[in-house]
Amino acid sequence: MSRLIEREDIGHVARLTLNSPQNFNALSMRMIDALSDALREIETDEHVRAVILAGAGKAFCAGHDLREMQAARGDTDAGRGAYDTLFNRCAGMMQMLPALPQPVIAQVHGVATAAGCQLVASCDLAVAAEGTRFGVNGVNIGLFCATPMVALTRAVPAKAAFEMLTTGEFIDAARARELGLINRVAPPESLAEETLHMAHAIAAKLPIAVRMGKRAFHAQRGLSLSDAYSSAGETMCENMMLPETDEGISAFLEKRKPRWS
Amino acid sequence: MSRLIEREDIGHVARLTLNSPQNFNALSMRMIDALSDALREIETDEHVRAVILAGAGKAFCAGHDLREMQAARGDTDAGRGAYDTLFNRCAGMMQMLPALPQPVIAQVHGVATAAGCQLVASCDLAVAAEGTRFGVNGVNIGLFCATPMVALTRAVPAKAAFEMLTTGEFIDAARARELGLINRVAPPESLAEETLHMAHAIAAKLPIAVRMGKRAFHAQRGLSLSDAYSSAGETMCENMMLPETDEGISAFLEKRKPRWS
Amino acid sequence: MSRLIEREDIGHVARLTLNSPQNFNALSMRMIDALSDALREIETDEHVRAVILAGAGKAFCAGHDLREMQAARGDTDAGRGAYDTLFNRCAGMMQMLPALPQPVIAQVHGVATAAGCQLVASCDLAVAAEGTRFGVNGVNIGLFCATPMVALTRAVPAKAAFEMLTTGEFIDAARARELGLINRVAPPESLAEETLHMAHAIAAKLPIAVRMGKRAFHAQRGLSLSDAYSSAGETMCENMMLPETDEGISAFLEKRKPRWS
Repeated sequence: MSRLIEREDIGHVARLTLNSPQNFNALSMRMIDALSDALREIETDEHVRAVILAGAGKAFCAGHDLREMQAARGDTDAGRGAYDTLFNRCAGMMQMLPALPQPVIAQVHGVATAAGCQLVASCDLAVAAEGTRFGVNGVNIGLFCATPMVALTRAVPAKAAFEMLTTGEFIDAARARELGLINRVAPPESLAEETLHMAHAIAAKLPIAVRMGKRAFHAQRGLSLSDAYSSAGETMCENMMLPETDEGISAFLEKRKPRWS
Repeated sequence: MSRLIEREDIGHVARLTLNSPQNFNALSMRMIDALSDALREIETDEHVRAVILAGAGKAFCAGHDLREMQAARGDTDAGRGAYDTLFNRCAGMMQMLPALPQPVIAQVHGVATAAGCQLVASCDLAVAAEGTRFGVNGVNIGLFCATPMVALTRAVPAKAAFEMLTTGEFIDAARARELGLINRVAPPESLAEETLHMAHAIAAKLPIAVRMGKRAFHAQRGLSLSDAYSSAGETMCENMMLPETDEGISAFLEKRKPRWS
Repeated sequence: MSRLIEREDIGHVARLTLNSPQNFNALSMRMIDALSDALREIETDEHVRAVILAGAGKAFCAGHDLREMQAARGDTDAGRGAYDTLFNRCAGMMQMLPALPQPVIAQVHGVATAAGCQLVASCDLAVAAEGTRFGVNGVNIGLFCATPMVALTRAVPAKAAFEMLTTGEFIDAARARELGLINRVAPPESLAEETLHMAHAIAAKLPIAVRMGKRAFHAQRGLSLSDAYSSAGETMCENMMLPETDEGISAFLEKRKPRWS
């Protein structure tokens, strides 16, 4: 029996694959819960140092499961309760990505639309195949992508986000990189390899320094300059006090590789 | 008798044209009031689904009316009251643009300087003709563009804004797009057509979804991630409960066009 | 005897040069104090209208002085007090750059890494030589660049910053400009000249307008749109009331050069 989220560990990298290719990996309630569960498992897994989020089949993710959403209109409250639960739980899952101790890299191909584009924006990093199309195009069917907008507007300039949201038009991978939505563009045939290469590069760093750093990164966003420095300064001190950092700096000064266990 | 603001409606698109070409559409007190009035009219006009803001003559807008400002120095308070009123009322007009229910697209040609550049930055979207020059160059005459800066720094990266503000140098349309100040660059001869094309694309969407979306867009800017999701999640639920959205999603699932009246 | 910070005044421009080429101008405690002292001197120097921050030798600045930091591990508290002091004082110095009345331009060549990259991000403007490499690569030796991150994330898009911080990889000058970390790229042989050209351009403006503008720039960052307009509107009024601004605008209207003493 296949599972909605496939997990494969390659060294210290955990790759999660959205596995519902028949509906372009739609973020159904079950898919959101499965992904949330997988992230919770990784949260406490000391072995995992970096996470890749990929999609099976022709597309990364095409957003919510519209059939499931329409079915809820038959509820006694015409769906309101179901939608409330869906968007809350989805927003909770999206916020697990920056809150996860390990960096998360989106490995994107085909299309990333609506909540699928939100998923890309919510990951710490993203690599996309040439030819990938990104959109927050719910407006085309009368459903403005309000929650995807939250992640998108924190990743790209305001006017570019507004254009995507109101015209429903796609952007390509090159434009997505120019805007800051993704980090790298790879030929389709080497997408998995290049993403894994980035994940391994991060996994090769001192894990606790990366964890402290990711936490500090998200903690200081939106703070005033002086509050941000207070917060980040404490992290620097804590980081310096680690014996592994002592070893890392000593190794650098002695022009040798650090001996980290 | 010609009016300071010309309004032309093309389908569901209202095009407002700053019409004072002899002084490059300077934002005199009368022009600010005329534009504010025109925006207030549109605010309650259910027929209008998108707005274009253009300029008559050789330039989009060259900023405030310096002759008018200098004349106020003869007031008993040496102009202070007049300047206070001018900058307050201008800032109020600029803030009407994101507050307007309908998306506003700047159609920019020639030059957009000082408060004219602020106008571009304050619109939700902007299309500019090749050859357009953008500047916040009041510093060249001893008047730092402090209020234009507010809109500019919310549209482009900090260092790029600081350079424009302190060197007084122009940037061209390609750089303006790269920085996020505008969305598209068009050949001068097709500027009006391309801008109208974008406006019609937006006007063809479900109007109430676009209105809810624009309001949600500006409401969540600057909020923490979790507050932004609470705000946007409510919009998603409300949007889902609309009968037109039911129709829009059903049509999509049935591979037909939505029947929106 | 050579000094840690060399100051040379060229007209109204003060150029400060980090002068410790043997360790790539490392930000040792003494260097931080020397730079802070130099900035304090300039703060009250009415003659100085723009500041250039450069580095002697092969690199602009390679970050903190790792040997000094390692030596502090021998302290009775294993270094904690020393690190606390170091990061506090360094953050204080970095915050002096936006707080300085005069614009500060980083003149960058060779490498700008860790706290050296933070220095570039903290300046108001930056010009870099082709071939310059930028990195926040402390993670490579087990020390996540948490404080450099504060300045970096306020200058470039989030995902790009996260990539630099967690992969430890360098970016080149062209990418740094694309991301907003620097303003201009110059051939190495004309770096000093192009930076000085920018500084002189700023120094040629009305000094008090530039000072009011720089203060207003940093004061309104992070404020809500309406609070930012209140703040900036007051600056505009104050600026308009200056006799030099009266002269500047009059000169412009009369198509002549302003007579500023």
